[in-house]
Amino acid sequence: MPTHVLALVPPLGGTVTVVDADAPQLSVLDLGATRGDGIFETFSVFHGAAQALEPHLQRFGRSATLLDLAMPDLPTWRAAVRLVIAELALAEGEEAWVKIVYTRGIEGGSEPTGWAYATRSGDMAHYREQGIRVVTLDRGYRHDVAQTSPWLLQGAKSLSYAVNRAVFREAERREADDVIFTSSDGYVLEGPTSTVVYRRGSTLFTPGPDLGILDGTTQENVFRFAESRGMSTALALPTLADLVAADSLWLVSSVRLVAPVRQLDGVERQFDREFTAELNEWLRLVAP
Amino acid sequence: MPTHVLALVPPLGGTVTVVDADAPQLSVLDLGATRGDGIFETFSVFHGAAQALEPHLQRFGRSATLLDLAMPDLPTWRAAVRLVIAELALAEGEEAWVKIVYTRGIEGGSEPTGWAYATRSGDMAHYREQGIRVVTLDRGYRHDVAQTSPWLLQGAKSLSYAVNRAVFREAERREADDVIFTSSDGYVLEGPTSTVVYRRGSTLFTPGPDLGILDGTTQENVFRFAESRGMSTALALPTLADLVAADSLWLVSSVRLVAPVRQLDGVERQFDREFTAELNEWLRLVAP
Repeated sequence: MPTHVLALVPPLGGTVTVVDADAPQLSVLDLGATRGDGIFETFSVFHGAAQALEPHLQRFGRSATLLDLAMPDLPTWRAAVRLVIAELALAEGEEAWVKIVYTRGIEGGSEPTGWAYATRSGDMAHYREQGIRVVTLDRGYRHDVAQTSPWLLQGAKSLSYAVNRAVFREAERREADDVIFTSSDGYVLEGPTSTVVYRRGSTLFTPGPDLGILDGTTQENVFRFAESRGMSTALALPTLADLVAADSLWLVSSVRLVAPVRQLDGVERQFDREFTAELNEWLRLVAP
Repeated sequence: MPTHVLALVPPLGGTVTVVDADAPQLSVLDLGATRGDGIFETFSVFHGAAQALEPHLQRFGRSATLLDLAMPDLPTWRAAVRLVIAELALAEGEEAWVKIVYTRGIEGGSEPTGWAYATRSGDMAHYREQGIRVVTLDRGYRHDVAQTSPWLLQGAKSLSYAVNRAVFREAERREADDVIFTSSDGYVLEGPTSTVVYRRGSTLFTPGPDLGILDGTTQENVFRFAESRGMSTALALPTLADLVAADSLWLVSSVRLVAPVRQLDGVERQFDREFTAELNEWLRLVAP
């Protein structure tokens, strides 16, 4: 039973090859490594299947377009995701995650690079049940920058994630676990690796559209669950005041799922424990 | 005579090892590849020596600090640069460049990753003599963002350079060769891989300080040359109007050296051919 599995994937289609995940497989001349010039997606795996596989693959295609990369051959990527999950030989009930990466390839070369990687997940129960402490940090861009300046690649899930890592270190310095980005003109955007969802009365809200943020693949399922419970859902252009006034606030992502925010910018918050637990259970066991 | 040379470098000190530059040497789990989480420097090599070696190494250290990476052991890096140049076995007069990279290492691991890579340069004479066409593009950040939001890593030479690559594609779409970034509040910043220098009368200007841009290592030498010719030099907070009004405008970088701007946002410009040629000659033959 391998602890992790790696397969090389020809991004534009071809044969997927399982290789040694512990051996070097990448050239230091790859533009993914030297320029963060590529895209990725991360899927969670519950009961042996990649969750929200098709929405993730569609988003992978949109990221490619934003970076002027040739459209990935989705059947090849779909097969690669299934292959690395199968090779992982998960026991019943084990959670895992898969990352797929597509880079522009070696500088000056003509072939892009791709791989799919799968490994078992750490235990996420603590975050889902106890909640997380979150700070808001300025992303520095106006909320409409994806429209005015598309070369800034906002809304693409690119490998240039150094800022998304730096803000976690800033959060740690502020004794918090995670971050919500705000625009330079005061709107709520997203987390560095998650989507913001909040509830006011019987309506769930999420920021968007056209805010230069990622479409939340897990957030779509959260909305589906809420609607099945007779709640309404809506896109919003929230400010920090809207988050503060919300009845419950969550950061939603593929692997950690729904993490309730128990502290925002140092202020303790309430959240609906029962609803959060039901939501996480549904995402793990029922969601497509 | 190898076409290129690669050495693995322990970032915090130790033995530098020359390895096969054509073989995969990097794990796909390296945070340099998956998150653009690391830093780099590029040096030009003239008459067998890395140019502005010490200013580049000092800037490498400042980038490490901005990314909360442990301080690189500069003697090890200095030795690595010299080793890969020596192994390249350059003929008299051949130009080359060296890139050094320092990443946070494999996710969850404790060791950072480092390498030094050297190869021969392409012919840069055309750019230096004929000039380049440049468009200005919004970087999306205010000019003071490095002070207000240091987690955005402005002023660090990080591996998260997807935007710096995307703007070259945008420039190409606009039939230009290169880019000058402006701040969202209208100030001139830098090129994606270069420093802006312009002349008005007998004074050379460059943007800075505290604009969240890289200290120009080659620009320092350009100022040194100008001062040796009796010109004055100054830091400025220029707007686009200042560039338009300048007598000559250049983009200055380590490998291409001084490229005069012959067209800005579609408008043809004059530049001082004689001064530019003398400057490039001095940078290649005399500069420290």
